[in-house]
Amino acid sequence: MNAKNLITPRKLSGFMELEPAKQIIFDDMIDKIKGVYKKYAFMPLDTPVLELSEILLAKSGGDIDKELYAFTKGDTAICMRYDLTVPLARFVAMNHPTLTFPFKRYQIGKVYRGERAQKGRFREFVQCDADIVGNDKLPVIADAECINMACDVFKALNLNTIMHISNRNILFGFAEGLGLKEQTFDILIILDKIAKIGKNNACLELEKLGVNKDNAEKLITLTLKQGNFEKVLGEIESLSENETFKKGISELKELYLYLSSYGLSKEDYTLDIGIIRGHNYYTGTVFEAYMPQHPEFGSVCGGGRYDNLAGYYTDKHMPGVGISIGLTRLFDLLDKNNMLCEVKPTNIALQIIPMGDTLPECIRLQSYFKNEIICDISYDERSFKGKMKEANKRQIPYVLIVGENEVNSGLYSLKNMMTGEQFNLTKEECLKTIKNI
Amino acid sequence: MNAKNLITPRKLSGFMELEPAKQIIFDDMIDKIKGVYKKYAFMPLDTPVLELSEILLAKSGGDIDKELYAFTKGDTAICMRYDLTVPLARFVAMNHPTLTFPFKRYQIGKVYRGERAQKGRFREFVQCDADIVGNDKLPVIADAECINMACDVFKALNLNTIMHISNRNILFGFAEGLGLKEQTFDILIILDKIAKIGKNNACLELEKLGVNKDNAEKLITLTLKQGNFEKVLGEIESLSENETFKKGISELKELYLYLSSYGLSKEDYTLDIGIIRGHNYYTGTVFEAYMPQHPEFGSVCGGGRYDNLAGYYTDKHMPGVGISIGLTRLFDLLDKNNMLCEVKPTNIALQIIPMGDTLPECIRLQSYFKNEIICDISYDERSFKGKMKEANKRQIPYVLIVGENEVNSGLYSLKNMMTGEQFNLTKEECLKTIKNI
Repeated sequence: MNAKNLITPRKLSGFMELEPAKQIIFDDMIDKIKGVYKKYAFMPLDTPVLELSEILLAKSGGDIDKELYAFTKGDTAICMRYDLTVPLARFVAMNHPTLTFPFKRYQIGKVYRGERAQKGRFREFVQCDADIVGNDKLPVIADAECINMACDVFKALNLNTIMHISNRNILFGFAEGLGLKEQTFDILIILDKIAKIGKNNACLELEKLGVNKDNAEKLITLTLKQGNFEKVLGEIESLSENETFKKGISELKELYLYLSSYGLSKEDYTLDIGIIRGHNYYTGTVFEAYMPQHPEFGSVCGGGRYDNLAGYYTDKHMPGVGISIGLTRLFDLLDKNNMLCEVKPTNIALQIIPMGDTLPECIRLQSYFKNEIICDISYDERSFKGKMKEANKRQIPYVLIVGENEVNSGLYSLKNMMTGEQFNLTKEECLKTIKNI
Repeated sequence: MNAKNLITPRKLSGFMELEPAKQIIFDDMIDKIKGVYKKYAFMPLDTPVLELSEILLAKSGGDIDKELYAFTKGDTAICMRYDLTVPLARFVAMNHPTLTFPFKRYQIGKVYRGERAQKGRFREFVQCDADIVGNDKLPVIADAECINMACDVFKALNLNTIMHISNRNILFGFAEGLGLKEQTFDILIILDKIAKIGKNNACLELEKLGVNKDNAEKLITLTLKQGNFEKVLGEIESLSENETFKKGISELKELYLYLSSYGLSKEDYTLDIGIIRGHNYYTGTVFEAYMPQHPEFGSVCGGGRYDNLAGYYTDKHMPGVGISIGLTRLFDLLDKNNMLCEVKPTNIALQIIPMGDTLPECIRLQSYFKNEIICDISYDERSFKGKMKEANKRQIPYVLIVGENEVNSGLYSLKNMMTGEQFNLTKEECLKTIKNI
């Protein structure tokens, strides 16, 4: 092909593509998250990346949001999924008769948002979701199970996080009790912004909604309550006689009982009435995980309770609770802050270097080693020196030199690349030495 | 929501969506394949599902094939990937200076073909690819490594397969030697169809191309040669003096030496000159795995050697060899023929059933057990009898009954659901009993 016809190789912007050494770490994080989800008896689900637009856009009445990847194929309006919750709703609505409830499923997969690419935002990202869906009813212990499991995930990932927990019924009910039932959703949107816009601006915005100053201040004071469960519950539980508010208090108390039973410590979680979460579908417990040493990361995991998962598709009433970890964004933050666990250029434990015409013997050795350690043969055309240099650059801990003498004697030169020591060993001794690292 | 407004939940046709019990088996197959790829020192790569159309369609000069999912977002023509080879080519062309060659990568991911849905064809399917890309040169041992690894994969999956191997230089060179160089590609297309259309029709089609009957018969006879390497090589090696043909013979001999060194037996592979593979980019070794007890499955894995992977994107010469397993189709075939390993409704080893107000204790027990076995708490509102029935239906091997007496005594009723036996045991004894299954 003529060089003039070459197409410059490039990928779409806003799409993460890792070098293999980092992909190993990314995959390892997925395995750890999956491992925790499995321990709690969640089952895997893998829904298609593409869904009928009518299904995916049920919530918006079929309007295609600018941020979605939507297109038409033949006569079919198709959309790439933008989360894993709507496909779950579609799945449980379709398969309701055959599922066992509570239905506990995890799904780890890519989702798509074609929004303008900006720092730290991705158009394709891996979400790690776990949800529990009940048939008609779902007790508060399910919420505790999700929160505890999320805490377990971050321990498995060796990341220090605190789970900030609230219950939307607290602010809902409190606003209701102040006679503000009609404005509740708008009030919550403002209260959700306090950290961004400040108390005074929040107060002004509430007043614009028609909330009097006294009530606005009460709402803000309540929103800012944060600390350990017993203390905060003690401070707020008698603030309102509203039934929704009291339901929130009672659910938080029950949640606290279960979280304590799971053995979570006070460092693991905190009651934070300011956790609201934008989604209107949350109806009870809500939570977000933060990294105390890195508040600038924002929330690294979120979730909560929703009253009716699949209401657009079925008249079956299915409450649920779930957690979601945006792994692509988290990984990117860790990477940019040098917080990934050690990035090694390769996971090869042994590089076999042939000298002369010994490839068949090298193959036999690789076949012997490969069930115990990852090993590779240098079969490219580099010089011996070049191959040694390459192994060194890739930080491969051991190199096995296989010349014709070695083949005849059955004793191979094993070189420890860290110490420079070199020994003549049988293959069994080589394996022992390497595995003793 | 009013029932009249419900949207019927459904998925796009041609998209596989498994029930969780089967998804466990599917995921387990992926883990096994990945495990083998890792053992041979392949590194993971995960490219985006979306690529610029210009990149993905370089081969076709930018023409959008009907079978592709292509669309425009803003001003950008975007395409869903239809295989994992083109993205690999784009990746190695983009990252050439930082890669270590031979570059060994595996990628397991979904690819998309929007063709008319038909039996056994999927529009979204998981491909499990592994490729070795060389910098300028890549020795024949790389081909052997791929073939041996593919054989290892099927052993790990416990599926009996035979790898049918050829080298495209044999038929290319033989045709060239007959003076048919210009028609070679068209000749191979016909020879590839012999099994479908029969020898006589193939002969007629060759004659239409201008091949005389004698040569047509020679070509067909050569194509039908199949058997163990030594026998077939002995029969064909002196059939032509053409250099390309002789190169094919010599590569097959070298390949055979390495395959024997890997310890593959004659039951694992066969030389089959009729393996041609449609793709024009294959230039040397080609292979396809078949299941001898299920010839109707067709090829369950294919691959081969290509001379220049990334020629559309770079003037760097990068030969490669790779294998590809279409897992979605293979899984579907195994499923429909009841050949999946045992499908159990769940992988839960222990179901904890609370009696009375013992949820906190059940949580403590789950926390104790969960690092060793998968265990679940029945916290739904079913009756005790209903919970036992459910555990039985889900084939959960053990049930732990936790009432208030049990909490006080520290002795729990463990029921073996297969034998019906029931014991009062400490939690440590319970764990031992369950793990002894």
